[in-house]
Amino acid sequence: MVMVINNLHNKGCSPATSTNYSFKDNDNQIWVTRSGIDKSIIRVDDFITISSEGKSIGEYKDLRPSAESIIHCVLYEMFPETKFILHSHGIFPVLISSRVYPEFRIQGYELQKGFPHHQTHQTESIIPVFCNNQDMEYFKKELMERKRQLNNNCFIIEKHGIYAWGNTLLDAKKHLETLEYLCQCEFLNSK
Amino acid sequence: MVMVINNLHNKGCSPATSTNYSFKDNDNQIWVTRSGIDKSIIRVDDFITISSEGKSIGEYKDLRPSAESIIHCVLYEMFPETKFILHSHGIFPVLISSRVYPEFRIQGYELQKGFPHHQTHQTESIIPVFCNNQDMEYFKKELMERKRQLNNNCFIIEKHGIYAWGNTLLDAKKHLETLEYLCQCEFLNSK
Amino acid sequence: MVMVINNLHNKGCSPATSTNYSFKDNDNQIWVTRSGIDKSIIRVDDFITISSEGKSIGEYKDLRPSAESIIHCVLYEMFPETKFILHSHGIFPVLISSRVYPEFRIQGYELQKGFPHHQTHQTESIIPVFCNNQDMEYFKKELMERKRQLNNNCFIIEKHGIYAWGNTLLDAKKHLETLEYLCQCEFLNSK
Amino acid sequence: MVMVINNLHNKGCSPATSTNYSFKDNDNQIWVTRSGIDKSIIRVDDFITISSEGKSIGEYKDLRPSAESIIHCVLYEMFPETKFILHSHGIFPVLISSRVYPEFRIQGYELQKGFPHHQTHQTESIIPVFCNNQDMEYFKKELMERKRQLNNNCFIIEKHGIYAWGNTLLDAKKHLETLEYLCQCEFLNSK
Repeated sequence: MVMVINNLHNKGCSPATSTNYSFKDNDNQIWVTRSGIDKSIIRVDDFITISSEGKSIGEYKDLRPSAESIIHCVLYEMFPETKFILHSHGIFPVLISSRVYPEFRIQGYELQKGFPHHQTHQTESIIPVFCNNQDMEYFKKELMERKRQLNNNCFIIEKHGIYAWGNTLLDAKKHLETLEYLCQCEFLNSK
Repeated sequence: MVMVINNLHNKGCSPATSTNYSFKDNDNQIWVTRSGIDKSIIRVDDFITISSEGKSIGEYKDLRPSAESIIHCVLYEMFPETKFILHSHGIFPVLISSRVYPEFRIQGYELQKGFPHHQTHQTESIIPVFCNNQDMEYFKKELMERKRQLNNNCFIIEKHGIYAWGNTLLDAKKHLETLEYLCQCEFLNSK
Repeated sequence: MVMVINNLHNKGCSPATSTNYSFKDNDNQIWVTRSGIDKSIIRVDDFITISSEGKSIGEYKDLRPSAESIIHCVLYEMFPETKFILHSHGIFPVLISSRVYPEFRIQGYELQKGFPHHQTHQTESIIPVFCNNQDMEYFKKELMERKRQLNNNCFIIEKHGIYAWGNTLLDAKKHLETLEYLCQCEFLNSK
Repeated sequence: MVMVINNLHNKGCSPATSTNYSFKDNDNQIWVTRSGIDKSIIRVDDFITISSEGKSIGEYKDLRPSAESIIHCVLYEMFPETKFILHSHGIFPVLISSRVYPEFRIQGYELQKGFPHHQTHQTESIIPVFCNNQDMEYFKKELMERKRQLNNNCFIIEKHGIYAWGNTLLDAKKHLETLEYLCQCEFLNSK
């Protein structure tokens, strides 16, 4: 997972100390990156255990988890099969987010097949775009209300970035790369 | 070949688990990448043998080859000297494909010499652009009908990507890089 | 630090032999890169000691420090906690600088939190843009007069590049990446 | 030198088997890359000796040097101090070349100091743009007639690429990076 994060950083998807990542272990314990880590030097040790309310627990209880941990917790609760969640600040989702709010609709690209359940590029994909709200309760509520739109295993936060998840690390990475690529296509095409 | 594929992935040409690659061995057996492999971690073992109809055979008969294997088979049949076929989802061919359908015409660039038989940049290069059809029989028919336009050893599929081939791996890579570069030039110039 | 500089060079932030970097050691001695070094091959040995007026001193007194050393000295004097200063020629700050002179204002991006003291993306960030003056006394005067606007630990020089600093190397890198990213967003958005 | 070429290839400056490179050894013998080499795998052995008329000589007389070897020879003759010549197909000089023909004028950028003799960014830099002529005699004549405009140690060939040179490899690299960067700035600014 650290390798995937390093690669995302090298592609400019986690500038400054932004973004966060999590996984669920075999005992269903959630591990999330702690706050403020530069993603070029992140290590396995920078993952800490959190409760289902997003608070650090156990031997890590004095460390601060990512401020957005609650989003991870809600996703794991809504989609029990999910094992990995990735969050990227790649520039194209950020650039296109304001223009397409409250949803990013896309059709006709082969790469849409990178989303789950897409058998053909002719299907329209709809990815929800949420406000960049500081209040984590907002996300909890919005995610649950728009659950049906989360069937592509990803969403966009306006002028912020994207979340993508999967039952395996490679699945989560696939959904993230698919969304980043499609945002780039649509942004460059619309210029 | 694995190194070439890894490099293409690093350049963003094979996001998600997209794209596929093949080669023909000294016994004229075709090997193609199996379906669903992340191209950042592809290994020699991920190539499997297929029949001339694109079905997996021999010890690999239980694995699923790339859904587009039949395109590879048709190309090997049409161009018996071909030994390597590369397929990329690089963003610029995808972006320009809808605008130039059904053919990408280009003239005046030095890099056109990267195509076979081009002695001068003043020659016009014509690269066919096909629909992104799910029906592989469509490609079989179109490829044979437009064989004359395949003399640059490459073609584009609309909003999907490109195919490029050659008698050696380096030749195939050369044709792929040439087409990607020219699509980027024309797309950026047209904005 | 050498690793950070190499990475910046690989991202195109220090083309030719441009840009310069400094740090302050535990004895408050300033070390700055000497003039004319290609940043792809910079080594620890290419840092030399300078006086608070930006002249090379000690065993390095015969070597020429970066022409902009005085900017580093002024910053260390104005912000005594600062230990690291990075200077980049990344293309997006250069491209946007003329359009936004004399200040780059930005609001609504999550990544603004990469700046110090930003609790929310709704705050407006103001980054000063200075003229690209050859006269170092100009910078000394401007920096002191606009000190209040330097609270994001960075500034832009028109058609030249950016300076960013911090109490640790990672902090300085964070401020630099934040500003580069926001300049890219605003430039691409404005096209 | 091989490392510099590999890096240029990785940045997309030598797609397909394009571009060529040369140096002059201590005996004033010119060595140039032979024709058709993929620059991702170029080795020291791929440099061959040529006569001052651009023909391969000595033990290499059966190998074909780059078709543009005569350009290298003319430059070495015009500028006897020159030891290294680099040729790039970077996309921004290619994109801007048609718009600015017959010369690329630039002013106000700090990075112009990457050119020789530039003390200030306020000086206007003028870089000649030549036609992409297949006839090498054209270049011989043009280069000599516009010698005064070659004082920045580089020139552009329309829709083809750039040449840059220097008395050391790092100087040649510096002039190349400076021109690539300035072409990118002006192209993106003009969109």
